[in-house]
Amino acid sequence: MTDAKRYGLRGVSAAKGDVHKAIKNLNQGLFPKAFCKIYPDILGGDDQFVNITHADGAGTKSILAYLYWKETGDLSVWKGIAQDALVMNTDDLLCAGATNNLIVSSIINRNKHLIPGEVLQALIQGTEEFLDTLRHHNINIQLMGGETADVGDAIRTVMVDAVMSVRYPKATVISNEKIQPGDVIVGLASFGKALYEQTYNSGIGSNGLTSARHDTLAHIYAQNYPEAYDPQTPEGLVYCGNKLLTDPLEGTPLDIGKALLSPTRTYLPILKPFIEEHFEDIHGLIHCSGGAQTKVLHYIDSGHVIKDNLFQCPPLFQLIQATSGTEWLEMYQVFNMGHRMEVYTNEKTAEKLIHHSKKFGVEAKIIGRIAPSTDKKLTLESEHGIFEY
Amino acid sequence: MTDAKRYGLRGVSAAKGDVHKAIKNLNQGLFPKAFCKIYPDILGGDDQFVNITHADGAGTKSILAYLYWKETGDLSVWKGIAQDALVMNTDDLLCAGATNNLIVSSIINRNKHLIPGEVLQALIQGTEEFLDTLRHHNINIQLMGGETADVGDAIRTVMVDAVMSVRYPKATVISNEKIQPGDVIVGLASFGKALYEQTYNSGIGSNGLTSARHDTLAHIYAQNYPEAYDPQTPEGLVYCGNKLLTDPLEGTPLDIGKALLSPTRTYLPILKPFIEEHFEDIHGLIHCSGGAQTKVLHYIDSGHVIKDNLFQCPPLFQLIQATSGTEWLEMYQVFNMGHRMEVYTNEKTAEKLIHHSKKFGVEAKIIGRIAPSTDKKLTLESEHGIFEY
Repeated sequence: MTDAKRYGLRGVSAAKGDVHKAIKNLNQGLFPKAFCKIYPDILGGDDQFVNITHADGAGTKSILAYLYWKETGDLSVWKGIAQDALVMNTDDLLCAGATNNLIVSSIINRNKHLIPGEVLQALIQGTEEFLDTLRHHNINIQLMGGETADVGDAIRTVMVDAVMSVRYPKATVISNEKIQPGDVIVGLASFGKALYEQTYNSGIGSNGLTSARHDTLAHIYAQNYPEAYDPQTPEGLVYCGNKLLTDPLEGTPLDIGKALLSPTRTYLPILKPFIEEHFEDIHGLIHCSGGAQTKVLHYIDSGHVIKDNLFQCPPLFQLIQATSGTEWLEMYQVFNMGHRMEVYTNEKTAEKLIHHSKKFGVEAKIIGRIAPSTDKKLTLESEHGIFEY
Repeated sequence: MTDAKRYGLRGVSAAKGDVHKAIKNLNQGLFPKAFCKIYPDILGGDDQFVNITHADGAGTKSILAYLYWKETGDLSVWKGIAQDALVMNTDDLLCAGATNNLIVSSIINRNKHLIPGEVLQALIQGTEEFLDTLRHHNINIQLMGGETADVGDAIRTVMVDAVMSVRYPKATVISNEKIQPGDVIVGLASFGKALYEQTYNSGIGSNGLTSARHDTLAHIYAQNYPEAYDPQTPEGLVYCGNKLLTDPLEGTPLDIGKALLSPTRTYLPILKPFIEEHFEDIHGLIHCSGGAQTKVLHYIDSGHVIKDNLFQCPPLFQLIQATSGTEWLEMYQVFNMGHRMEVYTNEKTAEKLIHHSKKFGVEAKIIGRIAPSTDKKLTLESEHGIFEY
């Protein structure tokens, strides 16, 4: 069975074809190549300012938290879900140059039969603790409340989303329009332990979790937790791996459950001060979320992106590939495979950034460059083969 | 079985006890009695301005749209769901005095196996059309994008949420702190046909829909659509009414499905210009959403609210009570029963508002008043009995 067919049968896709079709007529904003949709300053009426509202969430990663919590009683995984929902917003906004004075609202849709108050409290506490971490790094961010809805007829377990808004000077927008031949690409590692993180991070982020969950974990979870999957998915694709959540993940201090649940790393503490100091030299920022290593192709019109010095594939992605048999070409389209943030810049600034990032405990290196090309294309020269997109 | 027990078994509640417990330590904002949480101007840094972000959605009303669409092929019901998600935000913000320069983001969590692109298109088109209606009434509101997630392992059918942010002058906040003995209460009808609506509105809004759906509709919907309810709910409480979606609702031009799906009416076209002209005389605004006719008790510390001239109970609420056997005392806590917006003001301004509202095709009248009392209490003198809360 092809990877695309597996996705279809599981009701997910990396490409979101019908979603893009449904929204194709909507306004593209002031800077069509920017990582977020950027609008005029409706909130302030000042033509030197812009506004963004961004919505995203932890997606199906919350189902993994549910399974881990049910199996182990460990409530802390819900704090990670709160962080996932936040970072999927902060780090997209960061790519558009919006790094400060953020307001956030939290939306929890739950099945009250299964998700009690103690889980809500862990989610809310996780939100507050993560916002405190950001504030400790001079990022002004305010939780403005939110909505918790008891909607068990619609929700099997729980969904956690967040929405952030920001108003900032138009002159500080990063539009990605300066990405050009000659640029180098600095990749910031998604794995390891940043100084502002509590534990080793597997690097997983919040994308590809439906595949990672089903392909890695054993079918016993389908038998014991029918609420943890869509009954319309063919049974052979449901929790069809051979691992338990509490099995160790070799090469890491984590078990597989905690590795799959590693909270999405934010790059904001590293990049906020760096952008402030080097704004003119930053040509573009790409958050390798949905689309992963191919994400950049949405934000350029021409140029040959050559990534020939990637990080070594971290252990969790190795495991996912091994248990799923997914083609490596596909793995790089779904999972970040080692770096989740890319900075497009000149060589001199790249060296400064690499040094700066290491001060936060996050490995960084030049993972590739842009070569001239009239059409846009991407070559990945990876340890697992050379792939063209 | 008590009404509270029925709610519990269905995984819903009007009171949201454990939610309130989970959030009890969160910041209450600058104006604790205001209808929305109001924060300092993080977006602009101006101490004469305030910010609100508000999140809400169509809740389980989307399941009714799903059933109606599957049974009849009528996609238009999804446009109503888009409106529901928007109005649950606009009309809460309105109560805090925020009536203009709104930015909105839309979140759709769907089961892609069941909710195809044509439904997404109807939801997005419904969003745009409703925003156009608001703009036609001089309300500046911008859709800033949103997120559509394919999460069938977590979502049985679809959830539609919206989040709005606003920045506005502190001097125009309606804080509810001026609600006082001597005030009259103008109720604005939830039913009928406003001039800015396309069809007769049953008045249902977006609250109490889990009860209304199960108590009204026949069990055949459980048999034919197992995806339309939580399998953990005792079967006797699932679609335990005796009506079909296409049965006519007596006393209205609607069938029962369309009556349950009447898009939540906005009062913004009526109240925006009225607030601008009569700001000083408006002592408070209450959106009778969750908590319905008792909602005001969350926003006052003292005073005896006497509602003794309510609208006649519209046909849909009569039907829900008749099929469910719900106590009338409870009905007024769950359903608005005829008016979904309350304006607390003096008698002279009330008369002007009643006249003004009628120009928009929306009936309005003085439905009650505030009498002196050191503690807070509410008396409803209804056609169905006198109830104390």
